[in-house]
Amino acid sequence: MCMNTVPPTVSAKANPWRNLEVDEVVQLRNWLWRDELGFNLTRADIARLSDNSIFLIENVRPPKSRTIAYLDKDGPAPERFARVTIHHGAAAEPVIRDYIVGPLPLSSDTTIRQLTEIYHEPDIPYAGRGFAQSTSARPYQRFMTPLENITQELFGGTARGLDNDTLVASGSAPFSFDGSFRRAWLTWRRNTPGPWLHPLGFFQYVQMDGTDPSLWKLLKIVYNHQIFSSNEEFIEAYRNGTLKTLPYPDEKDPSWSSRQRRGPAPDLDDRAGPRSVSFNGLRYRVDRANQFISWMGWRFFLGFDRDMGLSLWDIGFRGERIIYELSPQEAIAQYAGGDPVQATTAWLDRYFGMGASVRDMLPGYDCPAEAQYFPATVHTALGSYTRERAVCVFELDTGTPMTRHHGYDHHEHGVVKGYALTVRSISTVGNYDYLFDYTFSLDGTIEVRLSASGYLQGGYWEPKQTGYGSRIREQTMGSLHDHVINYKVDLDIAGVENSLLETSTAVEEVTQPWFDDDWGQTVLQQHIIHRYIATEDDSLLKYPKNFQGGYSIMNRNATNSWGNARGYAIHAGVNAIHNTVVGSKRLLKNAAWAQYNIAVSQRKETEPSSSSMWNMNLPGKPTVDFLKFFDSESLDQEDLVAWVSVGTHHLPQAEDVPNTRTITATSSFFLTPLNFFDFDVSIDSTNAVLVNIPTEAGGEYTFDDYGVKSEFCLPPPVAPLTYTDGVEYGLDGKKMGPRTHEELRKNSELYHRIKMEI
Amino acid sequence: MCMNTVPPTVSAKANPWRNLEVDEVVQLRNWLWRDELGFNLTRADIARLSDNSIFLIENVRPPKSRTIAYLDKDGPAPERFARVTIHHGAAAEPVIRDYIVGPLPLSSDTTIRQLTEIYHEPDIPYAGRGFAQSTSARPYQRFMTPLENITQELFGGTARGLDNDTLVASGSAPFSFDGSFRRAWLTWRRNTPGPWLHPLGFFQYVQMDGTDPSLWKLLKIVYNHQIFSSNEEFIEAYRNGTLKTLPYPDEKDPSWSSRQRRGPAPDLDDRAGPRSVSFNGLRYRVDRANQFISWMGWRFFLGFDRDMGLSLWDIGFRGERIIYELSPQEAIAQYAGGDPVQATTAWLDRYFGMGASVRDMLPGYDCPAEAQYFPATVHTALGSYTRERAVCVFELDTGTPMTRHHGYDHHEHGVVKGYALTVRSISTVGNYDYLFDYTFSLDGTIEVRLSASGYLQGGYWEPKQTGYGSRIREQTMGSLHDHVINYKVDLDIAGVENSLLETSTAVEEVTQPWFDDDWGQTVLQQHIIHRYIATEDDSLLKYPKNFQGGYSIMNRNATNSWGNARGYAIHAGVNAIHNTVVGSKRLLKNAAWAQYNIAVSQRKETEPSSSSMWNMNLPGKPTVDFLKFFDSESLDQEDLVAWVSVGTHHLPQAEDVPNTRTITATSSFFLTPLNFFDFDVSIDSTNAVLVNIPTEAGGEYTFDDYGVKSEFCLPPPVAPLTYTDGVEYGLDGKKMGPRTHEELRKNSELYHRIKMEI
Repeated sequence: MCMNTVPPTVSAKANPWRNLEVDEVVQLRNWLWRDELGFNLTRADIARLSDNSIFLIENVRPPKSRTIAYLDKDGPAPERFARVTIHHGAAAEPVIRDYIVGPLPLSSDTTIRQLTEIYHEPDIPYAGRGFAQSTSARPYQRFMTPLENITQELFGGTARGLDNDTLVASGSAPFSFDGSFRRAWLTWRRNTPGPWLHPLGFFQYVQMDGTDPSLWKLLKIVYNHQIFSSNEEFIEAYRNGTLKTLPYPDEKDPSWSSRQRRGPAPDLDDRAGPRSVSFNGLRYRVDRANQFISWMGWRFFLGFDRDMGLSLWDIGFRGERIIYELSPQEAIAQYAGGDPVQATTAWLDRYFGMGASVRDMLPGYDCPAEAQYFPATVHTALGSYTRERAVCVFELDTGTPMTRHHGYDHHEHGVVKGYALTVRSISTVGNYDYLFDYTFSLDGTIEVRLSASGYLQGGYWEPKQTGYGSRIREQTMGSLHDHVINYKVDLDIAGVENSLLETSTAVEEVTQPWFDDDWGQTVLQQHIIHRYIATEDDSLLKYPKNFQGGYSIMNRNATNSWGNARGYAIHAGVNAIHNTVVGSKRLLKNAAWAQYNIAVSQRKETEPSSSSMWNMNLPGKPTVDFLKFFDSESLDQEDLVAWVSVGTHHLPQAEDVPNTRTITATSSFFLTPLNFFDFDVSIDSTNAVLVNIPTEAGGEYTFDDYGVKSEFCLPPPVAPLTYTDGVEYGLDGKKMGPRTHEELRKNSELYHRIKMEI
Repeated sequence: MCMNTVPPTVSAKANPWRNLEVDEVVQLRNWLWRDELGFNLTRADIARLSDNSIFLIENVRPPKSRTIAYLDKDGPAPERFARVTIHHGAAAEPVIRDYIVGPLPLSSDTTIRQLTEIYHEPDIPYAGRGFAQSTSARPYQRFMTPLENITQELFGGTARGLDNDTLVASGSAPFSFDGSFRRAWLTWRRNTPGPWLHPLGFFQYVQMDGTDPSLWKLLKIVYNHQIFSSNEEFIEAYRNGTLKTLPYPDEKDPSWSSRQRRGPAPDLDDRAGPRSVSFNGLRYRVDRANQFISWMGWRFFLGFDRDMGLSLWDIGFRGERIIYELSPQEAIAQYAGGDPVQATTAWLDRYFGMGASVRDMLPGYDCPAEAQYFPATVHTALGSYTRERAVCVFELDTGTPMTRHHGYDHHEHGVVKGYALTVRSISTVGNYDYLFDYTFSLDGTIEVRLSASGYLQGGYWEPKQTGYGSRIREQTMGSLHDHVINYKVDLDIAGVENSLLETSTAVEEVTQPWFDDDWGQTVLQQHIIHRYIATEDDSLLKYPKNFQGGYSIMNRNATNSWGNARGYAIHAGVNAIHNTVVGSKRLLKNAAWAQYNIAVSQRKETEPSSSSMWNMNLPGKPTVDFLKFFDSESLDQEDLVAWVSVGTHHLPQAEDVPNTRTITATSSFFLTPLNFFDFDVSIDSTNAVLVNIPTEAGGEYTFDDYGVKSEFCLPPPVAPLTYTDGVEYGLDGKKMGPRTHEELRKNSELYHRIKMEI
């Protein structure tokens, strides 16, 4: 039997970024609920829109300087604070405010104050409020009930607010431009597995201003390019025969949008595919309590939050901090189309909570069989929940040597094997699945990769949709859209004081005195131009044409042994794209980072993130206005943050059915040493071979494998697959009983599949 | 014990692209040597430059139409022909000509004729002749012997033509512009492991016109920016003290350029890393005799040639041919620098024989332990040799699901695991190692990837080199250069008649009657523009800015079930670059493909390749002039070839020492179905899971894993590492005894490490 597959342990300092425990949140809720604070709060699980309630309680990430002092210099652990989001629905002018509470644990020293310094619009309009499940209202039912007979005849379904509803809606976004109104298009679909691929081409525009859902109203119906200002108008047109109808959905078997297999398995697919096994035991160390991992000279802490899920902190390599924070910031998806919904949709998935949308992964399928899992706890308006398999970590043989050479001289011939440690979390935001991967290599390179799968947000196919995507079924199209995801990369190269280097190449014609033969005296060749970008005036960046050059974070005051400034390059990976559409009102100022591949600003405690959960619905007046970070400050030996974007231009095709393939729906960038070391440090690896050249012709080759041999042993069997929905805690911190799958579905699909309620 | 790891077999048709056997070549040589043909041939192993001799005998790839008839319609096997390259050194005007001999086997029907139709300059100037090892001349020795004392004093070494020479030279390229002269710069280095990193900054310019090496002469010496027209001038300057010298190489321990480890191994690196095992047996089938492989619906034949090594043929998926030919064509490396050599070097590695430069791989290191190997035989002027491990094939778990979704409705929640089959061959051309990878996926996607490792062609560091690279050691720099590699991709989508689709996206402002609320009546969004490129006038292509769109090979007369033309897209991978310098005299017309990402032309039997082994030394008058393929012919439902390039802009850095890391020195493109299917066919995979949602709240999850379980069994131990130099055959076809490693080194390093001879 092989060594057991429990990872070796390591003892890290207490993770300064760990989320609040459930009981800490419960205590905070009780503390906040006290009358003396004057918030007049209603429990969120029974609160109406017109009540005040707590939307979110989460840890505050401690200040960098104090955290570094704690980590590097045995300073005290940074004080802990909580961020509290309160929906002031009962205010004369309803508003949302963030507060900061601390220090924790709660004591007589604990205070609360509004958190304003990290927002450009600290009072968040109520129309931009975060999404919360509410089971108390079915405000849209009254817009569909009158159409019951017609939808049955036109679409073969109804939406009556019952469990067996055969039609479901999905809302669009943004709801508002600047918080002065709140409106959304609803698009209707068949309620079948993969409903996103079963649009009906029937749209309702609804107004949701104010806090009294009974006052919300239907503004418009659009169906087959006909516009109606009310249900009555629509019914009348249907009854009098003037309504031009679309073909009846001819879908006797809607299973094509499920993940069921269609045809026979490929040859030999009855055999389980190859599986990676660490015959000699796992090679990474884990401090589970502190969510800390070390591998092959790397070390880092994990963080996790409601908005964006997994983040990595204090990433070090060979004893030096390389990155203080590496965390996703926002994910946009901007659509195009010939219908009211696809033409106006610009999702910012932070709104929905990409951390809150993380579910347990399927061992052996979502991550290799040997992967280890880490739990995450997310707090919401209605309680908390813990997922045991929120994050996985695994090492794989990349299959490609890190370096190799075949030579016949002494110590020239050899290979360093390629291994990589990947940390992964998967967030399913309604229809889409985002795979967040962070992959570490032996040479000091990190690949940050975002892959997408899951369902398209399909459109209703009709010839006028030509140019907005591909027909992928009788009445379904895949709609053109851009995904762009932004990351915060707080590189620290030999300390926090760093500079931004732009490297480019250009062609030159040079004359040299030694060229005077048949070739002529001049030579056409390229040369490198290095320019330090001095200020934030010039740091909104795109990859150069033909990738001739790029951008790096350097320390001008720290050189390697050969006199070059030490640094890390941000190297484009696959699908190195930025957003296509600039200037849309629906994505105006709330995701300006998406227009660039990279943007570099001075790091500030007051600019912790490029977005906020409210940005989606406030494109004209965003809570975080990214471009305001760029106010001419120096980038010369300052603490810098690179805001790096990846994405895909998704021009859907038949092969997106049932789910998008990660193989092309993927995008990445590399953070890779640039004269950071004196040589390639992966050469120190002993999972490597050096070939000794025989001294005699025909002599036998011998090898230096550094004594590293893969064990001949029986690895443990693959554990049977199990799955759970995680553990949910109520507002009182008590474990709640299991939910029905209809409830779980609703929590998971948010308003991407609405059964008669938002 | 697990099932054995021998791959299951399959029986393919005889491989129409198989190379000639050694005895066939021997028979051909004897046939050619006959007086009656009048070639007046001398055996190549004793031939002087002024003799006629056979440079190469290789198989001719059969015509496509006949080959398809054979493969698809049980037609007769295509007749076999050989291509013969003859060096006519004895001619009044020495010249190289290609001939075609056949049909084979030799009989009274066998004829020979000059092969002209595939070349734009069928009479190849002798100055552009292919490289052959010759042990008969040490023509450069006389240029260095007089300097013996000076090189000892300046560089601590000598080059006397002895085995213990401590200095070695390397030649530059191209030698000529149009064949009218033959000249090269020699750069001198210390003869130590990894000599390419030990330049001395000492350059000699030599003239090699004509066939009598005794008439070749030294034209110039350049040292430390001083120019001398002869050795005598140089010696005089040294003696009279006017020579400005460079620092003495201060390298007591030159082992930094070896692959020896420098420091301690990382934590836990004494454990062998994870290893992929097919516990249920291998899942690909092999016909070893015919070099045919099938896997998960894929099938293809292997080819192998002297010029470019591994090629893939008749690539089919799920019963349909997708690609007739997928083969590398050429690999350029164009340098820049402040010295005579780096500023003028433009390698075209086909010249050296990238197939001839393939050596056995190291099992478990160059390819995963479970990989299977295929042999290849290459014929040269001096004989033939067979390498048993020239090509490897292996399947790996990619670690990333091909598709997945987490849903709570029936059959929504599941994962198809990602597996990939890779075919690899590694070519070491002197200092550089090229890893050619072809990776097949379950969905019909192929990734074509070229990764590089091995040694930089380093330059001598001095401050005037700033802008041409990075200092990587006291006296060594890595010199700026571009690698670009061209592939022939002969896609056949539902037959050979295909069209070239350009897809682009643009931003539009559209008005819709249903938008009249607070947002205004217009919407800014993107849309897709499809344009079929009609002729070769418009088919020299670059990836669009921001990758907004791309290029695909489509069959306009074949649609999928949703009415879309079936096709395959050429999707950019990582480092999607083209060449930077356009217009250099040294890379003028001989590698014009390098200026583009993709070029598409009508497929012709007369345009089999974008390059030739002679192109390197004939930039002004290339044997194959790629741009001449583009002569306004129709691309509308014709047999098309996409010439796709990948590459890297290599701005070297300290981390290129000792060898370049494949992790960033890699470039790829994807060939991926585009409405080729009606849905994503990878959904048929049974290495997948479908999660059944419990009907009761809190009920247990069940799973459909299609009965596929990884076996609990003991896999065989990793076989001890062995290595051989392959089997060499003389001109008579007899196995030759083992060579010394000095000879093997010389054959391997060509003129990248010259010990006193070219």
